[in-house]
Amino acid sequence: MTTIALLQFDPTVGDLDHNGRRLAALAHQALSGGAKVGISTELAVCGYPPRDLLMERDFVERSMTAALTLETPLPVLVGTPIPAEDERTLPTNGVVRAGPAFATITGDEHGRIVAEKQLLPTYDVFDEARYFTPKNRSGLARSFGGFTLGVTVCEDAWQSAGMTPSSYTQDPIEHIAEWCRQGVDIDATVNLSASPFHSEKFTTRLAVARHAAAVLGHPFLLANQVGGNDDLLFDGRSLAVWPDGRAVVAPSWQEGVLIVDITSPEACRWVASEAEDALAIGEAPLMHLEASDDGTGMMDAIEELTNAVVAGLADYCRKSSITSVVLGLSGGIDSAVAACVAVAALGAEKVTGLAMPSRHSSQHSIDDALHTAEALGMTHHLHEIDAMHTSVEGVLGEVLANGHPVAAENLQARLRALLVMGYANANASMAITTGNKSEIAQGYCTLYGDMAGGYAPLGDVYKMEVYAMAERFNQRAEASGRTAPVSTSTMTKPPSAELAPDQTDQDSLPPYDELDAILRSHIEGGLNTDDLIARGFDAATVMDVLQRLERNEHKRWQMPPAPRVSPRAFGQGWRRPLASNHDWRR
Amino acid sequence: MTTIALLQFDPTVGDLDHNGRRLAALAHQALSGGAKVGISTELAVCGYPPRDLLMERDFVERSMTAALTLETPLPVLVGTPIPAEDERTLPTNGVVRAGPAFATITGDEHGRIVAEKQLLPTYDVFDEARYFTPKNRSGLARSFGGFTLGVTVCEDAWQSAGMTPSSYTQDPIEHIAEWCRQGVDIDATVNLSASPFHSEKFTTRLAVARHAAAVLGHPFLLANQVGGNDDLLFDGRSLAVWPDGRAVVAPSWQEGVLIVDITSPEACRWVASEAEDALAIGEAPLMHLEASDDGTGMMDAIEELTNAVVAGLADYCRKSSITSVVLGLSGGIDSAVAACVAVAALGAEKVTGLAMPSRHSSQHSIDDALHTAEALGMTHHLHEIDAMHTSVEGVLGEVLANGHPVAAENLQARLRALLVMGYANANASMAITTGNKSEIAQGYCTLYGDMAGGYAPLGDVYKMEVYAMAERFNQRAEASGRTAPVSTSTMTKPPSAELAPDQTDQDSLPPYDELDAILRSHIEGGLNTDDLIARGFDAATVMDVLQRLERNEHKRWQMPPAPRVSPRAFGQGWRRPLASNHDWRR
Repeated sequence: MTTIALLQFDPTVGDLDHNGRRLAALAHQALSGGAKVGISTELAVCGYPPRDLLMERDFVERSMTAALTLETPLPVLVGTPIPAEDERTLPTNGVVRAGPAFATITGDEHGRIVAEKQLLPTYDVFDEARYFTPKNRSGLARSFGGFTLGVTVCEDAWQSAGMTPSSYTQDPIEHIAEWCRQGVDIDATVNLSASPFHSEKFTTRLAVARHAAAVLGHPFLLANQVGGNDDLLFDGRSLAVWPDGRAVVAPSWQEGVLIVDITSPEACRWVASEAEDALAIGEAPLMHLEASDDGTGMMDAIEELTNAVVAGLADYCRKSSITSVVLGLSGGIDSAVAACVAVAALGAEKVTGLAMPSRHSSQHSIDDALHTAEALGMTHHLHEIDAMHTSVEGVLGEVLANGHPVAAENLQARLRALLVMGYANANASMAITTGNKSEIAQGYCTLYGDMAGGYAPLGDVYKMEVYAMAERFNQRAEASGRTAPVSTSTMTKPPSAELAPDQTDQDSLPPYDELDAILRSHIEGGLNTDDLIARGFDAATVMDVLQRLERNEHKRWQMPPAPRVSPRAFGQGWRRPLASNHDWRR
Repeated sequence: MTTIALLQFDPTVGDLDHNGRRLAALAHQALSGGAKVGISTELAVCGYPPRDLLMERDFVERSMTAALTLETPLPVLVGTPIPAEDERTLPTNGVVRAGPAFATITGDEHGRIVAEKQLLPTYDVFDEARYFTPKNRSGLARSFGGFTLGVTVCEDAWQSAGMTPSSYTQDPIEHIAEWCRQGVDIDATVNLSASPFHSEKFTTRLAVARHAAAVLGHPFLLANQVGGNDDLLFDGRSLAVWPDGRAVVAPSWQEGVLIVDITSPEACRWVASEAEDALAIGEAPLMHLEASDDGTGMMDAIEELTNAVVAGLADYCRKSSITSVVLGLSGGIDSAVAACVAVAALGAEKVTGLAMPSRHSSQHSIDDALHTAEALGMTHHLHEIDAMHTSVEGVLGEVLANGHPVAAENLQARLRALLVMGYANANASMAITTGNKSEIAQGYCTLYGDMAGGYAPLGDVYKMEVYAMAERFNQRAEASGRTAPVSTSTMTKPPSAELAPDQTDQDSLPPYDELDAILRSHIEGGLNTDDLIARGFDAATVMDVLQRLERNEHKRWQMPPAPRVSPRAFGQGWRRPLASNHDWRR
């Protein structure tokens, strides 16, 4: 009676039927694995984040019913929104008991609520004060499959460790610790989480869990959501941590069950999801960490980033019923890496690449594009755009000749989008964009041109990281005896949009290593102009970079969703006024 | 000593210098008008909504400094974010005293804080719990230019009237009323507001103000923001209401000063802003309402809608430094009305229309398009797209012939976007889209085609309302002796995208009156499939409409901002998960 299963679940937001079936299947795997009880992730029945669906009472009620009627072969704590008693009160983010004892709705389900979230994160990608009423009492599940469990929901555990951007007035972990001091005999405290991924997030989450276990004096078990929903990624890596700091960590980017023996870290096991379409990206080792190991050693930053980006696209497509994608291949580094991502996510047979040279394209660009397509084994086509270009010039020639030169450059990018979208629409595929975070931040991209597409796999990846990902994809290919997909020429030539003769990106932008450093310090680190100059960056460059960043806010609002892999992405977590925010920073 | 000026201000979000200068100028006009004190709108120094700028401490501190150093010739209560004492606490949404007594920062400004917002709306377009700490004490400004004023901020007044979607645990109006009962002698209670517009919102706001005045037993004065910021519109219509229900209402869509004599509604006056670029759309009468008048009589719904849409585009352009726009003219009702809006907002000389007939366009479409352009006096050009179309077919012919027919239709819309964007980029203009809410809701529009543009003036206007706006623009033209810009042919012909031979919108969609009724009942009224069928709508039609609505969520996330004129728009107030929300409603 010492085994608890953490159901590391990849829900589809809003798909209550699918989520219910999948949770039940994971619970069966947990039972087969010897577990006595199961713990789901946060809001598992409806998936996280449900956003404004939570403002529809109908949706909240159906979610609650789905949780209460979940047919599981062992007792499971299930995350679900819980409707309020009256129309003018928001629901709570709660946890209910499901299991063999419960088959039908009897009208007496209130007693099955074991916890309701107390700390509602409302910053960055989180908006929970918008959707939920906070509660002020920690959860306790007594006589639950033989256990007594403290029950918390995600953020509830973070105040204790001081790991939230602002302070809450209560501390659920301390609350449970106080019960223990008063003599309540708690076997473990569980935490139902949907804790999003970003680079290096895991070490923070581990620190939070260790802090909780130390304060509580008993094991702390965190079941984390895995997979992508919209632009949010969840890495999984469910955890069990003991008060002495030892930890067991489930794999990232895998759906499955972490079977935790609360008396023995060594006895813990990982059982991968048996579902045919279950997310399973990258290696899947179960990690055992000693107290002295802060988890940084288990992270290979580029491997992590690459798997995250692949998982994001794979899950976005599966959950949106998109079975194939199409993209432009320019011979440059971004489109080469985007193609690698797409093939890793969907398989080469589901990816079509279009090489679309213009009058300004060099032969090496065409060669490099074809090299990537052939090495990856994907379908590809070559279409010259010059005839179309000439045809449009026949209509627009005078306007272009007398106007800003960017108009003529954009035209080529938009002609390519026309072809990519033509393929996508004709074949019921999704176009993906190839732009990276550095160029998008600077507006070095064309609206309705290279920004056209349903998903931007590299939209939160800085340019220098794109190069590192290219190396990683090449290493992976070579390790398995395949041709490296990104050619040496693509890796080493000066980046160019090739929209004007002899153009290079560095005609308009600082060198990418410098640009990335400035952007990262500003966007992720919060440094302003003065701070950046004080750190030694060139003043004129800093001013240029930050001005372009602000001026292109308009464009970014029309960007397709991009998997969030950095601590601050453009999108939900970078929600600035669209017009007119240009002056205060001067 | 009975005169208070409500500064009905049109701030530019983030532009602290501009806002400070403009507020000072309005305060000068207030003084000239005989006022003893001035009351600004909510967060006047930084504009509303500042969104995630509020998460930058630097921005909050500069805003506070701007408020404290505002040079006004009479005492003014100024709305500003107020930084918290420590880094881990959010700022408050507050009000400080400014005026002749204060010239420099002395380090002793804490005493100048007179109120901090208590009720933080966090629903629909509001996200204030994300940005602010709520306070639990109502504001009082004693010895303020000879007055003692209760001070509240926007939502603070709404709980008392029961006009919020969910309940708050405190009631600031009741709090001030209790002070009055305890003998505090309050002359009036003021409310600094940024209360957004939507159709029929004013009657609700008036009811809230009357409720407050009745509970308080003294005049209640509400200074409301005016103008557009991003997709939010603020109609102004600042109010003074007496306990007996009499009310004085400032004009909508005008910047200026409402001079309120708290002893005499009849003595109140409106002074329009003297700033050269001040917002001034539509008629500007000062309204006096008797207690029995609920305000509905002062509303002409279509006049209101038309002015709102014009104000939105005008302000968006001014605040984004956009001086001219370009749009496609199809001869259809949407582009005709969009052209009318653009000309009303910016002047005919700032608007360029492109008629771009395809092989499927009828001669009457071309004639109708040219009629609108000529009647409005705007620049226009005619470009056949057939040669370009043929040229692209040379590249993509086989893909189009063997693929989904929508691909070939979209191609034409995207060729037009290519030309519109070519003009826009070459001439540093902004493209505007012409689509309406009904078709956008159904995905009856083309990504990177007719959806291409920086602003969607009709994006929150239902199709039947577009017809009504057309009639209104025609009436306005005829009343001033000009040619009606929307031809009878445009008004009466069956709507058609003209992307395939003999195509009409009703091949794919239900009749627009029925479609609009279903959409409005669902989006604004919250009715689900069952509810709609119970109301007598055809079941198959309802299912089709709601399925198309959900399936096209992806597209709408890439829509440009549209002025919010209905109680629920797409955008901030309709923030649903992007992928995978398709199943729960089945």
